[in-house]
Parts: sequence; structure tokens; C-alpha cells
Amino acid sequence: MNVKLELQYDGSRYKGWQKQGNTDQTIQQKIEDILTKMQGTPIEIHGSGRTDAGVHALGQIANAKLKGCKDAEEVRTYLNTYLPEDIRVLSAEEAEERFHSRLQAKDKTYLYRIHKGGKPDVFTRKYTWSIEEELDLVAMRKAARYLIGEHDFKSLCGNRHFKKSTIREIYSIEILEVGEEIQIEVNGNGFLQNMVRILVGTLVEVGKKKRDPQQMKEMLEAKDRQRAGVTAPPQGLFLKEVRY
Amino acid sequence: MNVKLELQYDGSRYKGWQKQGNTDQTIQQKIEDILTKMQGTPIEIHGSGRTDAGVHALGQIANAKLKGCKDAEEVRTYLNTYLPEDIRVLSAEEAEERFHSRLQAKDKTYLYRIHKGGKPDVFTRKYTWSIEEELDLVAMRKAARYLIGEHDFKSLCGNRHFKKSTIREIYSIEILEVGEEIQIEVNGNGFLQNMVRILVGTLVEVGKKKRDPQQMKEMLEAKDRQRAGVTAPPQGLFLKEVRY
Repeated sequence: MNVKLELQYDGSRYKGWQKQGNTDQTIQQKIEDILTKMQGTPIEIHGSGRTDAGVHALGQIANAKLKGCKDAEEVRTYLNTYLPEDIRVLSAEEAEERFHSRLQAKDKTYLYRIHKGGKPDVFTRKYTWSIEEELDLVAMRKAARYLIGEHDFKSLCGNRHFKKSTIREIYSIEILEVGEEIQIEVNGNGFLQNMVRILVGTLVEVGKKKRDPQQMKEMLEAKDRQRAGVTAPPQGLFLKEVRY
Repeated sequence: MNVKLELQYDGSRYKGWQKQGNTDQTIQQKIEDILTKMQGTPIEIHGSGRTDAGVHALGQIANAKLKGCKDAEEVRTYLNTYLPEDIRVLSAEEAEERFHSRLQAKDKTYLYRIHKGGKPDVFTRKYTWSIEEELDLVAMRKAARYLIGEHDFKSLCGNRHFKKSTIREIYSIEILEVGEEIQIEVNGNGFLQNMVRILVGTLVEVGKKKRDPQQMKEMLEAKDRQRAGVTAPPQGLFLKEVRY
């Protein structure tokens, strides 16, 4: 059975989604270890995309092919019994045999949370980027409009040696004030390595009036990572939803 | 100078506010250790009240008498530099010499957060009580009304050997639905040990229809801890505000 899993995780303790040779502190490894034990044979799971070290997920999607499994709900219960408490399977369902969580994803939504005012907050420190300076949201929204649509996002790509196409389409960027937070929600058909974090870092520089919103156009056209802003820290970022 | 401190802490890692002989993992101890080092002489701080192991604070108030201190803001900066990240001083100000954070507190507000639906949530698990069953909020609000006012709250006191008066006044109990949470806010002139947690545990039994709202009156009159409900778990409780 091809099982589709909806996952939530607090990325604080992990080296990201993707398994790595030098550590088992990755989300993928934690899940694969348990499924491998359950099945008695090595199991691989496919995530809709990698999340960086320290990045969280509200709704990561993954799939795995499991043998002799009659009930997807059983897999959910088994995983939630053995997974650490900061990784949870929200739902599990049987998917078509050809379903692939990464290749078939239509769009993804990321949420980035900024805590305003620089006042320390022990409850949000692991889930927000704390910024002391006042941010000009009108300028940030103006800048964001230049990023909507299909563009070559090479300037927002954290991997300098990335060989494949860096063209992606961003459908929407919403910048909202929610209590003491500024929340930036980005929806698009796909994202390059660190792309949302560099996008947020660049918008924040606009918000601090270190950049003009109009600069976004030439920043993109330069296709040069050096022309974009800083990479926003990982703990503010959440993979919110993946749609198929 | 008598310095009044406004504190926020994530109680998850601590054995509560009050210092104890057998552990230094208490909020009071952590703060006293730093102030003692700063002053070069043993410093004692007075909290507005004890919070139990695992209970959090959004606005605990404490005060300490410090010598040779010219600027309360300096104390805040010093403490925030050396305190662990899950304890923060939100503000520090000079108080009158006779100010005492516990003896002069006029009223306190506690917040209790319940996560609905029993769905696992990695981000709120340390800050809520997760309850699967549907709760009848109308019945809970009806029950809460019996608790408002001045009463002998011995039935809601977790300390069986408490010798002093168990009479307190509750000014208000608000029960709100906020997204996926039920939030219970209790304001009163003072609270006995575990009182808010037992009050919440009892209201939840009403919400589950295990008790009638009308039973509250005889429960209080019995002055017997056995007649009240379970003690709600500590991680849902926050000391929200102390007023003077």
C-alpha cells in the first residue's frame, strides 16, 4: 500500500528533513527507522520537499510504500507511539500506487513568523524571528508584488551550484499583522533552497527602509544571490500546506 | 533600591517558583543566584506567589532589595544576560521601599489553556491540556458562576494540612473558545495551593457531564478536597497578571 502521511513537527531539535550520513537527527531518518522496524525491511519515505535545520512543519506531506499493510490508520497509530513527541502524524491514508509526494505537489504554502518590538518572549522565541525596529508593511507589500508571478528566482536561491532550472511561480504573498507578530505567507508551485528565508530577509530590509520596493525587479533580473537580502533565521519558518 | 521585576517564564524545565533544598531548578533560585553574584552578597527575592512545577508565567511579579544600584534597567539587562532563555525579565522599575510583591498584591489573573479534539499538536503540547471529549461550555459557565464571590475554598485546596484561612474571593471566571482552544481565565484576590488547577479540573468534569453545575454549591460547602474534581495538569496554567 502506498501510504500518504500528513506530518507536523517542531524542527528545533533536528538537522532538517533530509537524512544525512553524519547524523540521525533528521525527521526523515526518525520516521524511516520506525517504519523499517515495523516492516522488518528497509523502508524509504519521500517528503514533498526538504525543510532546513530548525524549520518547522504544520502540514508536511510524505509517502511510503508498505507491504502487508491493510489499514493506513494503523500506520499512523504505530508511528505516533514510537515517534518523539515533537513529530506527529496528523493523518494517514491510502494513496494511489503512482502517488509521489514531491513530484505531484501542485503548490505549497509557507508561513514565516516575525515577533515585533524586540521584547523577549520565552514562548515564541523558538518559533519567530524577533525584530526590534519598526517595519514598514506598506513598503514590504509593495516589494512583494514584484515577486508574484513566474520568475527566475536565482537571486533567491541559497545553493550557488544549483544546476537545474531556477524558474518558479509565486502565486501570492500575504503580509499580515497578527497581535504582536507579522506573518508572511507565501504560496507557489515550488521553492528553491532557502528561497522563502531569503525572500523574507529581503522584504525585511525593505521594511527597515534599507532597500526600495522598486529594487526588487533588478534584484531578480541580476540572478545573483549577492543582490538579495540576508537569509532569515530558520526558526520563524513553517511549511504550512502542500496541495495536490 | 527596592526593585520590582516583571517576569515571564516557560515552566516546563523547572520545579516551580519556590526554591528548595534538593534542587536548584527553580525560578527563584535561578534569579537569586544571578543577583547574589551581581551584588557579591546573598540576595533574596520575593515572588507574588509560588507557581507549581511545570506552570508558566506571562507576568509574575517579584521584588528584591539591592544595594548600590542606581538604575533598575541595569538589573533587567544584567539578569537577561545571565538567565536561561526560558526566563526573561520583561521590565524592572524602582518601587517604594515598603513594596512587597506578595503582601501587597490586590488581585491575580490566571489563564488555563485546553486544546480541543485530542488531535496531537507539537506546538501547544507543552502549554495546554489536551482533551478529546467535547466539553459543554454552557454547563461549565453555569458551574463557574457558583464559584464567583467570597467563599471558603477548602474543597479546592491541594494542601490538606493548610492551617490558615482558606477564604478567598474570585472576581470573575471567563470561559472562551479561541481557535482550537478553550481558555479559562480566573481573576481573584488570592489563590490556595493548586486551587486554579482543581477549579479547572472540576469545571472540565462538568463539561464532560460527569457533574451537574448545581453540585458546585455543595462541593464548596463540604470543605473537602475529595468532593472536587481532578487537579488539571500543570502545563496548561499561566500566571497572567498581578495587580497592586
